[in-house]
Parts: sequence; C-alpha cells; structure tokens
Amino acid sequence: MTYCLGIITNTGLVIAADSRTNAGVDYISTYRKLFDFSKSGERVILLCTAGNLSITQGIVSELDRDLKTQEEINLHTLPSMYEVARYIGSKLRKIQELDEKWLKKDGIEPQCSMLLGGQIKGQDPALFLIYSQGNFIHATRETPFLQIGETKYGKPILDRTLSFNTHLEAAAKCALLSIDSTMKSNISVGPPINLVLYEKDTLEVKNWLKLRLGDPYLAEIRKLWEECLKQGFNNIPNINWQHRTSDTSEDILID
Amino acid sequence: MTYCLGIITNTGLVIAADSRTNAGVDYISTYRKLFDFSKSGERVILLCTAGNLSITQGIVSELDRDLKTQEEINLHTLPSMYEVARYIGSKLRKIQELDEKWLKKDGIEPQCSMLLGGQIKGQDPALFLIYSQGNFIHATRETPFLQIGETKYGKPILDRTLSFNTHLEAAAKCALLSIDSTMKSNISVGPPINLVLYEKDTLEVKNWLKLRLGDPYLAEIRKLWEECLKQGFNNIPNINWQHRTSDTSEDILID
Repeated sequence: MTYCLGIITNTGLVIAADSRTNAGVDYISTYRKLFDFSKSGERVILLCTAGNLSITQGIVSELDRDLKTQEEINLHTLPSMYEVARYIGSKLRKIQELDEKWLKKDGIEPQCSMLLGGQIKGQDPALFLIYSQGNFIHATRETPFLQIGETKYGKPILDRTLSFNTHLEAAAKCALLSIDSTMKSNISVGPPINLVLYEKDTLEVKNWLKLRLGDPYLAEIRKLWEECLKQGFNNIPNINWQHRTSDTSEDILID
Repeated sequence: MTYCLGIITNTGLVIAADSRTNAGVDYISTYRKLFDFSKSGERVILLCTAGNLSITQGIVSELDRDLKTQEEINLHTLPSMYEVARYIGSKLRKIQELDEKWLKKDGIEPQCSMLLGGQIKGQDPALFLIYSQGNFIHATRETPFLQIGETKYGKPILDRTLSFNTHLEAAAKCALLSIDSTMKSNISVGPPINLVLYEKDTLEVKNWLKLRLGDPYLAEIRKLWEECLKQGFNNIPNINWQHRTSDTSEDILID
C-alpha cells in the first residue's frame, strides 16, 4: 500500500510520501514514490505515485525520457500546471492502454493515482490529484489537501488542524504526523518517508527530508505526539453517565 | 455507513455505535445499531450491527422472536458466549440465504457484520466480531478492541491509547473520541451515538449514554479534544530540515 499527501497553503506546498510497496502481505519492498522534476529558478514539479507499480514506473520513465530527449512537449516546456497535469494524465492512459488487457487477464488491477504539486514562474502554485482514469482535480482554499492510497488513518489529524492559512512549517509537521499515524495503523505503509516543503515563489526545492526506518528524529516526533495525545486524553474528564437516557423500553425493535 | 466499536478490558466491556444509515448519499436515515438483550443478574448480551439493514433487522427480529416465544434455543438459554455467537451467526446465514439471490440479482450486497459483547454468570466477559459469512473471532488481551463498518478514521486513537489494562472509564472516553473522529471525517457516520460501559461481574447494564445530534456534552468533548490536539500539535517543534539528505541525484529513476 501507499500513502501520499499534498497540502497547499497561501505560502506554498507540502508533499509527503511513504516508500512501502506490497504485492500481497508476503512480498513487501521499498520504492520511492516522490519524484522531483523541478528546474531550479524556472519551475517546481513534484510528483507522487500510488497503485500498480509497473504502471507508475512506466509513467515516470516516460516523463523522464521526454525530458532527456528534449521532446517538444515535456515537463519543462508545458506552459501551465494544468497542462502538466493533462500531459501526465495522458501518459497514464497510454501506459494503462498498453498493459491493461494483459493485467486484467490475470486479475491484476492496473489502477494508479498521482499527486502533482508545483509552480511555474509567474504563476500561482497548484496541487492536483490525477485519477486512475487520467482525469484530475485540483486542491482549493476550501479543501487545501489531497491524498492518495491509504488515506483514512491519516485524515482525522488533517481535518482537525489544517486550513489554507495554516503556517507552512505547521503544515509540514501535520503531514509528518498524518503519515506517522498511518504507519502506526497500517503495516503496509512504511518508511523511508519523503517530505518536501516548497516556499511559494522561490522556484526551488530547498527543504527535502528523508526519514529512514529507525530514524531517531522520526522516533522522537512519534514519542512527542503520543505523549501529547495521552496527556490531552487524560485531561478530558471522564464520561458523564448522568446523560444516560431511560431508553430501556421493553420492545428493543422500536427505538 | 456505520461505525461500531467494542473494547474488552480486565474490568469489563465498552460498546459504542453510531446511528446513521445511508443508501447512496441521497437517502440518509437514522437507525439504532446497538441492541441490549441482557437478563439482569444472569447475563449481559449486547449486539451491534453493520451492513445491509434488511438483513441485520431480520437477524435482530428473529433473536427477539425466539426470546418472546421462549424457543428452546435462545439468547437466554445458550450456555456460553461462544454458543451465543454461533447461534447469531446461524441466524445471519439463514436470513442471507433467504434474501441473497434476490438482492444480488439487482446488484445489492447482502453483506453485514456484528459485534457481540457480554457476560454469562460465572464466566468471563467476551467480545466477538461476527463476519458476514457467519464465522467469528473474539478479542484477546493482545487485541482488546474490535470494529465494524467505517473502521479506519477511528483506529489511530485506539492504537495509541488502548490496552487490555486501560481503565474502563478511560476506554469509554476513548471509544467516544474514536466515534467522534469518524463522524468528523465521514459524513455517513452520525449521531445519535449509543455508548455502553459494562462493569465485569455486575451482570447488569448500568451505564448507557445516548448522545443526540447537537448534544452539548458531545460538542464539549469534541471541543476539548480539538483544543488538546491543537495545543499538543503546537508544542511539537517544527521539522528539523537539517535532516535533509543530499538525495538529489541526477537520475531520478534510481533512489
């Protein structure tokens, strides 16, 4: 499984991804899922992938090849993040079309999804979720984060702490805790964690953190968060059972 | 959707359930999902249901009918919680067999699952998860909680705060926060919340809380928890980007 998360705020972007891949529970391996296609000073392009690994690796390989062979249309020539998302969606469709029939024949799902975050010089930063069908949505002020993969365990903390006006450093902290919560509850999501903080208009990825298994910093963050949860939990008064209703009617079938 | 949760500790049981049912997003209604079949002083039997409502209502109706008509085998005559679970599983299979063909014909899923918690005089309390196939597992010291329905949003808080030795009042508080987290992240889980705390060997359900929509107590608990999360979150130091690796190799395809 995978968990990737993108956050957009009024001052930039945060992108985070785990690195665990599994085919069943008995074949678990580590693959990077966060890729940096930026061109310093001109554009920042960050891509996270989830789903069928052969499909997503195929997409990344083609994006990279088009850059290296300087195709007319590539990640560094397209004029807007919207068109970059369209282009990546079309790569996804192409690779799926190539392989889908052969995968489905053996009951293998070709599904995948991606997060695309970045900024092109002179334009605003943008964050997209590209679906397995190649279509996509973008994050907005009202919904400033997008997730792919194993999204549920890490969503409560985002729902409770994030908004478009959250300080960028706090958003990065929040992303790390969201991934850590997911790793704690689902063993198929795991380190290394890649975490990127991009400050709007710098057009350069300066803050990239890679936390490996057993990293003392990750352990410290987890310990701090667990202590904070436990302490906060203890501070909440016990349940007031006086609220108990006399709802003990004979007929249990009618509430 | 539904979220039901059962916790067993060394001093008793906590059972909690929401009350929202939906058929698609455009037909949402309120149904009780936590049923009390206890016989005071002799046995405590609490049942939570999730899944296809016509199937689960059918099961509860038959359990109730067998009690009222004093069938030889009913919830008050079976000699152990294990056999109670078997009996409920057989009811589930019976109702599914009756309806399955007609439901599947129109693409409707007959799936359901149940939590069963209780104690029979002279025996230990027990907590079971009955699957849609009628088989079941029970909670243990190592895994003291079981969930059905929309289980993921509410699991991180359980993973971080619960053990078999957790104080029963704390377990109840934890259950309430777990349900509240789920309601916050998934609109198809909603109040009233039914929450029961059962103290081992009392053979009576004394603590039953029903929290309706807009209940000030529920709002207060949520506010306290959000404040505690926010404060704890603020206390965690910002990310130390010094951990940044020089992992900016030219070839992005090899990590």
